[in-house]
Amino acid sequence: MKNYITHDEWCIIEDGFHPEHNVITESLMSLGNGRMGQRGNFEEKYSGKSLQGNYVAGVWFPDKTRVGWWKNGYPNYFAKVINATNWIGIDVEIDGVELDLATCEILSFRRELNMKNGTLRRICTLRLSNGHEVEIVSERFCSLAHDEAGMINYAIKPLNFAGKAKVTPYLDGDVSNRDSNHGEKFWEEVGKEVKGSEAYLTMKTKKSAWENVPQFTVTSGMRMKFYQKTKEIDPVSLPVKKEKYIGFSYELPLITGEQTIIQKYTCNLSSDNHAPEKQVETAKKYLNEIYHLGFEVLLGEHTKEWEKKWERNDIEIKGDIAAQQGIRFNIFHLQQTYTGEDARLNIGPKGFTGEKYGGVTYWDTEAYCLPFYLATADSKVARNLLIYRHNHLQKAIENAEILGFSNGAALYPMVTMNGEECHNEWEITFEEIHRNGAIAYAIHDYINYTGDKKYLSEYGLEVLIAISRFWAQRVNWSEAKCKYVMLGVTGPNEYENNVNNNWYTNLMAQWTLKYTLESIEYVKAEFPERWKELSAKLNFNADLEEDKWEHIIEEIYLPEDKERGVFLQQDGFLDKELMEVDEITEHRPINQKWSWDRILRSCFIKQADVLQGMYFLEEKFSLEQLEANFDFYEPMTVHESSLSPCVHTILACKLGRIEKAYEMYVRTARLDLDDYNNDTEDGLHITSMAGTWMAVVKGFGGMRVNKGEISFDPVLPEGWESYSFRVGIGSELKEVKVNKEGFEVVNL
Amino acid sequence: MKNYITHDEWCIIEDGFHPEHNVITESLMSLGNGRMGQRGNFEEKYSGKSLQGNYVAGVWFPDKTRVGWWKNGYPNYFAKVINATNWIGIDVEIDGVELDLATCEILSFRRELNMKNGTLRRICTLRLSNGHEVEIVSERFCSLAHDEAGMINYAIKPLNFAGKAKVTPYLDGDVSNRDSNHGEKFWEEVGKEVKGSEAYLTMKTKKSAWENVPQFTVTSGMRMKFYQKTKEIDPVSLPVKKEKYIGFSYELPLITGEQTIIQKYTCNLSSDNHAPEKQVETAKKYLNEIYHLGFEVLLGEHTKEWEKKWERNDIEIKGDIAAQQGIRFNIFHLQQTYTGEDARLNIGPKGFTGEKYGGVTYWDTEAYCLPFYLATADSKVARNLLIYRHNHLQKAIENAEILGFSNGAALYPMVTMNGEECHNEWEITFEEIHRNGAIAYAIHDYINYTGDKKYLSEYGLEVLIAISRFWAQRVNWSEAKCKYVMLGVTGPNEYENNVNNNWYTNLMAQWTLKYTLESIEYVKAEFPERWKELSAKLNFNADLEEDKWEHIIEEIYLPEDKERGVFLQQDGFLDKELMEVDEITEHRPINQKWSWDRILRSCFIKQADVLQGMYFLEEKFSLEQLEANFDFYEPMTVHESSLSPCVHTILACKLGRIEKAYEMYVRTARLDLDDYNNDTEDGLHITSMAGTWMAVVKGFGGMRVNKGEISFDPVLPEGWESYSFRVGIGSELKEVKVNKEGFEVVNL
Repeated sequence: MKNYITHDEWCIIEDGFHPEHNVITESLMSLGNGRMGQRGNFEEKYSGKSLQGNYVAGVWFPDKTRVGWWKNGYPNYFAKVINATNWIGIDVEIDGVELDLATCEILSFRRELNMKNGTLRRICTLRLSNGHEVEIVSERFCSLAHDEAGMINYAIKPLNFAGKAKVTPYLDGDVSNRDSNHGEKFWEEVGKEVKGSEAYLTMKTKKSAWENVPQFTVTSGMRMKFYQKTKEIDPVSLPVKKEKYIGFSYELPLITGEQTIIQKYTCNLSSDNHAPEKQVETAKKYLNEIYHLGFEVLLGEHTKEWEKKWERNDIEIKGDIAAQQGIRFNIFHLQQTYTGEDARLNIGPKGFTGEKYGGVTYWDTEAYCLPFYLATADSKVARNLLIYRHNHLQKAIENAEILGFSNGAALYPMVTMNGEECHNEWEITFEEIHRNGAIAYAIHDYINYTGDKKYLSEYGLEVLIAISRFWAQRVNWSEAKCKYVMLGVTGPNEYENNVNNNWYTNLMAQWTLKYTLESIEYVKAEFPERWKELSAKLNFNADLEEDKWEHIIEEIYLPEDKERGVFLQQDGFLDKELMEVDEITEHRPINQKWSWDRILRSCFIKQADVLQGMYFLEEKFSLEQLEANFDFYEPMTVHESSLSPCVHTILACKLGRIEKAYEMYVRTARLDLDDYNNDTEDGLHITSMAGTWMAVVKGFGGMRVNKGEISFDPVLPEGWESYSFRVGIGSELKEVKVNKEGFEVVNL
Repeated sequence: MKNYITHDEWCIIEDGFHPEHNVITESLMSLGNGRMGQRGNFEEKYSGKSLQGNYVAGVWFPDKTRVGWWKNGYPNYFAKVINATNWIGIDVEIDGVELDLATCEILSFRRELNMKNGTLRRICTLRLSNGHEVEIVSERFCSLAHDEAGMINYAIKPLNFAGKAKVTPYLDGDVSNRDSNHGEKFWEEVGKEVKGSEAYLTMKTKKSAWENVPQFTVTSGMRMKFYQKTKEIDPVSLPVKKEKYIGFSYELPLITGEQTIIQKYTCNLSSDNHAPEKQVETAKKYLNEIYHLGFEVLLGEHTKEWEKKWERNDIEIKGDIAAQQGIRFNIFHLQQTYTGEDARLNIGPKGFTGEKYGGVTYWDTEAYCLPFYLATADSKVARNLLIYRHNHLQKAIENAEILGFSNGAALYPMVTMNGEECHNEWEITFEEIHRNGAIAYAIHDYINYTGDKKYLSEYGLEVLIAISRFWAQRVNWSEAKCKYVMLGVTGPNEYENNVNNNWYTNLMAQWTLKYTLESIEYVKAEFPERWKELSAKLNFNADLEEDKWEHIIEEIYLPEDKERGVFLQQDGFLDKELMEVDEITEHRPINQKWSWDRILRSCFIKQADVLQGMYFLEEKFSLEQLEANFDFYEPMTVHESSLSPCVHTILACKLGRIEKAYEMYVRTARLDLDDYNNDTEDGLHITSMAGTWMAVVKGFGGMRVNKGEISFDPVLPEGWESYSFRVGIGSELKEVKVNKEGFEVVNL
């Protein structure tokens, strides 16, 4: 755990430079606008520890899969969002000495992410090896209003000298991913162009071994503006060209005590959104527009967009500034990562803040992120998350075919970029099939929240039928049990692999079948034409399929221990040595200290599994049942997934156990800010941030939605004076204010 | 399946060149002497499809492990026996045209492995592009009498011309493994030396990232002799030096119709057996001796050694020449691979015939190979196989410690070179722990066969106690079953992973504990001093440990279905859809046609699992029990491991089902000769060859040994006129002759 970030309500502040934590700070101070994102790297050269990261949404490469022993059905490649052209770079040399925070003396330093308006600001004073003291103030943002543009305002002020600065702003496409196999680089240069103080660099992803994978072209542009004493100046641009690199060199006179301001206007255009053959031309127009608006206007527009966002989704916590900072930090990053403008995009586990997990889509999106966007954004945002999976339906069907399924059964991939499976551990890829349940559940969740039943008819039902077909083929009749069983699965608790009858998976399969049958009835009745068309397209055999589904719904095996009154995570769970987490304190985290077999045969649970089911389908279970299962499973849960504590917070609140709920809550609220797990340098836990939001709103706030009807049942954690949150439902924006006296719900 | 090898009782013959099968033929015609081995490559350059393979026993490299997702406890490297200096090379140019069977016209061709005396002979007539016709006769062997030496007699006869040959015999250390990661080469040159017609090349394995892995130095030497018209000639040697390469160039006049004979005497000395600093000197002496003995004498010695071997272990089958060839082929390769001279060596799955599986040691050795060497060689051969594991005991204890075990518990690695685990699939590495049982059982097997009870006291018991300690920690008490259970294992049937209570594993654990307790009693009574010493060294707590073991023996859970009268392969087996292999004919082999999850949840069995236990511990089970289990499991068995059919042959014979037994037998007897599985080009299935031998001797021959008492209960497969085999026990060599009239046992 680290504690070097200053607690503040609206800002993430590094006061005084911490080079030893620089890679962490870069993650924390990442900026994004849903279309592009950028780690909190310095503009000028930095020879210390750093992880450069510039990402363009939707741009990826099929990296070679690393695997020891191949299994049939493994994916050929691992799709990963790749580091793209570095557009922030501005190298600075002052009277012949290169500016590099790793080598000069730092007299003062402050780096600050302002979450209120999404800007990253740095102010520092430095003493160079030649004794020159200089102040650097840089500010930048990725515009929410113009989501292919990023702007930098970089000011140099000589404090004790007059002299000359050599300034080299550049675009550098010669970048690589830290996690690429054998340091392979993924980009090739297509071309570059210079015109006055404008430069354009077009890079294209390499041709891969896979024909069906598109190559992406990204054109980055930059245009420079300079001010001295508030007046624009026009220094001579000397182009600097290298392979995959274009820059300008400027000589600027520096006046003692006066700022020289360097403004860099940039854009990053992807072939995903622009015809590649016209991309440079388009970039020129785009950049011209941006440039003429100017930094201040652009910043104003950007700030306004952030205001709108905060207006809808701020959470205010009084009496606990660390908690306040934590929750805003989570909301801020979620809003930066995904804006819901483009149904081809999704939410990578690290968003735009690092390379880990390849920026691909997991079931996190449906299970954790969807509720956040449902409540905090226009319904089209959540809808686009569903459309994303609908668009991938054909690939999910093909994926299931590879595994031996037929008749339009779909198995969605565990991790994906374009709908194809990218994961290659058999116990996950082939067996962690409960993801299919979460994708079905998200459809229900969306319709329940928005009332948009038309979605069911247009898109949802097709997905539901394909998933139900999968479940119906995936179970088999056990003569021994006289029940349908589901063999060889991995549940949400990945500390069990290849188990039989995972209660959660069986439950979600049963639920999906039931919801699909209901949905068929609904669409049949309300949109008969559509049903006719759809059932023909899907070759749906109502007699056979519906009967089989009904039978499975009735006869699926759901393991339980009646004596204890608990559902059993899987067959044989009670054969384990049942222990509590408290008994193995010195062995934690077990995923670092124990071998995999020891983890597997232990009773310890990585993240909510039975309890995840009781959270999703809470109306099916009584409080007593919830209590018995919570008391049985929670003490065995090590929460070694960042997605675990939030579900426990919500359930603990429901059980009135506020202290326990709060204990769970603090584990994730500042997970990245305090670098709890020593992994923030890999990037932020974006998807688990949505869980933290849920812990507040659905946990402490007790928010529930039932067919569009919203209700609250708030509690106030000890130590908080008050809190309030805003959620939108239908056309209403509600503010829930909770304090020691009680709570009120205000329609805004 | 292929069918291009001529059926012959003693020879493996390729009549007419089959370039499309050349890599297979190279595997089939591999030579070895336990110390070095060599695939059946051509001496002269061959630009067609080929896999060069020269192996020196015990010389390996820690190649980088390929893995997708790392788990704690995975090995750092994969030890592999590496391709070493090519010592057979003789490049030939005739009047300026290079001899290359891929480019010249082949007028006749015959390649022949003579199993009677372990020689590889080739005779071919070729027409070169210049119209010259030439006959090549080459013969070579790896001497059994001088096991660091290999000899080649290479004769060139011009048929329709007189001219000149440029002959370049060489040693080439610039070799690589086909399966190395990214084509990495493992050898560096230490030095080379030339003296007259002698040359020496010393290569050293590269320094690896692992400090504890030794570097091996191998010195190869060659010395040349030439004959024309039966007279030795002495052409001028021109040294040819390249990096990692030393050769000589000779100009030889060719006389029409006369053979020019090139004899190449070579040696390969490893630092495993010779002080590296004196290795070149030693090689010179060694080669000098060999050279002066001359090819004929060396061949005579070598032939005599093979005679001795066949004298002890030949199997003769009359009336089925294909079966005769098959069984001798198996015996021949087993004898070439392991001679039992050196307890540091073991039996790689491919022996010296290919790279696959890295030449490392599996449980195949104990379960399949040991019985072969027990019956066909001096008892010290089998003893050295046990000593090998005793030597690795400390590493097995460390391996168990990594996984969380303590108190001297040992888990032997799944695959190993030096005692360290090299495998990295968690379901195998960490869970296929039944290998420990086979290693314990082999101790019993050896003592039962040889009566060498002293071995128990000196070595065996220490291993048994360490393994028993492992079992005692690996089980846990199930409150639900009121039994000891063993969770999370993979049995011999690797088409099930991470199952609970694999019957075979639990049975072998129980057996080991019982045998260890008996052995302790025996050693206590017969070697009290040794017991005192050993129990002190092991910190053996008789009260605690013996009681615990007794309790486990009594209360271990052995799943069964009493109604069917069968033991259950594992918990939940009866939840599967029970089908017979015949129902999925078009899906076979399932390991190529099905995804892994489909294989796992199916009932289909890769190789004997429950039946393996009934084979090992046959005295525990009645014929009725065997029959019920055989009838239940055999129809579900796909035999997709080459180790599977032999056990079924033996059991089927016991049940009097000779036809079934024969059906199983033919699957393996010519597995490589006919390339059943399309994988002979990777090398031969050496360890499964021992299974084929067992199928004849223990299956058809009904051989059993009980405390040194040998018995036979032979049957004659239909289609065989008669067969006979020889086995040694104690000081006796017995020949069992079986024909249609009956059988007789002759003491030789």
